[in-house]
Amino acid sequence: MDAVQIKWRVRAVRQRLHEERLDGLIVTGVENVRYLTGFTGHDSWAVVLPKSVVLVTDSRYTEQAMAECIGCRVVERKGPLAIKVNELLETRTIEAVGVEDNCTVATLQGIRKAMSVRVKPVRNVVEAVRMIKTETEVRLIQKASKIAFDAMDWALGQLQPGMTERQLAAMYVYRLSHYDATEGFETIVCFGPNGSRNHHQPSERKLANNDVLLLDFGANYNGYISDMTRCFAVGTPSDFYCRVYQTVARAQKAAIAAVRAGVRVCDVDAAARQVIEAAHLPAYGHGTGHGLGLQVHEMPSVSGLDRKTRLQAGQVITIEPGVYLPGKFGIRLEDDILVTDTNGKILSRDKRFEIDVDTVPICL
Amino acid sequence: MDAVQIKWRVRAVRQRLHEERLDGLIVTGVENVRYLTGFTGHDSWAVVLPKSVVLVTDSRYTEQAMAECIGCRVVERKGPLAIKVNELLETRTIEAVGVEDNCTVATLQGIRKAMSVRVKPVRNVVEAVRMIKTETEVRLIQKASKIAFDAMDWALGQLQPGMTERQLAAMYVYRLSHYDATEGFETIVCFGPNGSRNHHQPSERKLANNDVLLLDFGANYNGYISDMTRCFAVGTPSDFYCRVYQTVARAQKAAIAAVRAGVRVCDVDAAARQVIEAAHLPAYGHGTGHGLGLQVHEMPSVSGLDRKTRLQAGQVITIEPGVYLPGKFGIRLEDDILVTDTNGKILSRDKRFEIDVDTVPICL
Repeated sequence: MDAVQIKWRVRAVRQRLHEERLDGLIVTGVENVRYLTGFTGHDSWAVVLPKSVVLVTDSRYTEQAMAECIGCRVVERKGPLAIKVNELLETRTIEAVGVEDNCTVATLQGIRKAMSVRVKPVRNVVEAVRMIKTETEVRLIQKASKIAFDAMDWALGQLQPGMTERQLAAMYVYRLSHYDATEGFETIVCFGPNGSRNHHQPSERKLANNDVLLLDFGANYNGYISDMTRCFAVGTPSDFYCRVYQTVARAQKAAIAAVRAGVRVCDVDAAARQVIEAAHLPAYGHGTGHGLGLQVHEMPSVSGLDRKTRLQAGQVITIEPGVYLPGKFGIRLEDDILVTDTNGKILSRDKRFEIDVDTVPICL
Repeated sequence: MDAVQIKWRVRAVRQRLHEERLDGLIVTGVENVRYLTGFTGHDSWAVVLPKSVVLVTDSRYTEQAMAECIGCRVVERKGPLAIKVNELLETRTIEAVGVEDNCTVATLQGIRKAMSVRVKPVRNVVEAVRMIKTETEVRLIQKASKIAFDAMDWALGQLQPGMTERQLAAMYVYRLSHYDATEGFETIVCFGPNGSRNHHQPSERKLANNDVLLLDFGANYNGYISDMTRCFAVGTPSDFYCRVYQTVARAQKAAIAAVRAGVRVCDVDAAARQVIEAAHLPAYGHGTGHGLGLQVHEMPSVSGLDRKTRLQAGQVITIEPGVYLPGKFGIRLEDDILVTDTNGKILSRDKRFEIDVDTVPICL
């Protein structure tokens, strides 16, 4: 991240504020603060003003903020954040300021009480700018994907029957530390029928012979997140498992093939669902994908319910269709895709974790 | 957790709602939902009604909710949470309902739009009930403390010069998985001068000979969290380090000795600070402690600025004075204390991690 990028981001935010007839924005979300200033700490707000950006922090972070912040002034507060922000606003000719509506109600109340200017909650101002990634950001997501595969490859190398879901997840997370990375989100490890539960948390379930695995994992590298899902069989999988695996793999391939700038998200969603429905298997209850970047769930949502939104070049989205058979197993296959003008480029391509439509990967 | 406990909790919440002239409460905070229903999943709200409690969840969680919930009805939604909640409220004679003010502004807006009854944001309704722990809860915190020490003891056994802060943190977190536990909060590992930075995140800093360590760590066991800090020296520490360590240890001892029901939190705070000031060392900028339980920071805050709040029997608080010397090192010592009518009982007592006023513990 450099000064030019930050400048572009701030300019894009100001453009949106202008459309909303606001003179400034109080940025409370930690990822948005980072995006607009470079600051990686917590408990600090960025204030976008007509001619400057100010980071309001406290003594715990001042040294770090001075070192990290790009193109913004650092102000140290002693009292509440809102009081300090009001001081900044009062000295300028500001009439109305936006506040991100994903702050808490209590935070907004504190801001309203402290401010002498008009305060208006606003939605997705910075998030909409974040949606379009720069080359640097794309490289970081790609690196986060490589790291996640490296760590999972190592963890799977340690896997033995009798090991629990939680232990495999813990080994994966441990290994990430070798690559200066942390977990991108709470790692999902499902053995056997647990794979059919979409939001399963790693449990004490032990790996058995002839088990199947569903792994949904990612890394956070320098703030950017990768998010992949792979499925494996221990020993020889049943014919039915293979059939379902192939169907999901084909569905994923079809959706990825549908990705390019200008295409409606609902059409990408439909491309995956059609394959699953044609195979007379139950369609998944979740969306086909989501944007990712500084957060694991960002705009846009790749949903069949949204008939309007179209993909834009520079977005990074997941494509993750699945088939879930309660009591039996679940299969989901997920990759991270860069949207370009001509196609979808798979950022999470890795030889060790290739998705082959014809072959279920075996582990152990 | 059993039906009797849940009933007591719900009754205490209703009492508070009555005082605020509210007929019900929409509980959005994940720990509060768990506290009032037993449900451990996400994206679900509990609704406290005059004569019942309802958990509103979606198909991903229905099976889990049916198994986990105690004394409450489970309702599955298809559309937005707020719409389903309004349906529940409409069929009853309810005039005004509270919403937790730590939900987001966007969430409150969604609720306001969907509701036909009056909606009022409320603060700390469930949190105030959670402040007083039952014996079961105290046992879980104690177990979470034992587990954290077991895992850290193992991780320190693997420690070698050249290992990074991040690797030590990762080994600790990995080992927690052997005890069915996860990290209680982001583990803090500081080598050398990094210990003076209060909110340091584990970095690539390598352990050197004659280094010093500051470890702030805890476990989450069955939802309950422990939170301890210990400091160590590699090899023989300097006389100055020993003097500061002894001072902080004495300050911590003094504050713990001051704990019992009825004592003002500011007096506990002062007990620690006096020892540090008498030794002509700089006092710490943070509070002396905080409540803990389902969250790592709960009520009450043990702060010198609060001249009114008094400790109550059944609270569990941390006591964690420190001395921070930028560029040199930092020392903080932290234990988890149960407030009783007669004293403060240390829940985080462990022979391997005993704090001895006269001796700096050595590792390696």
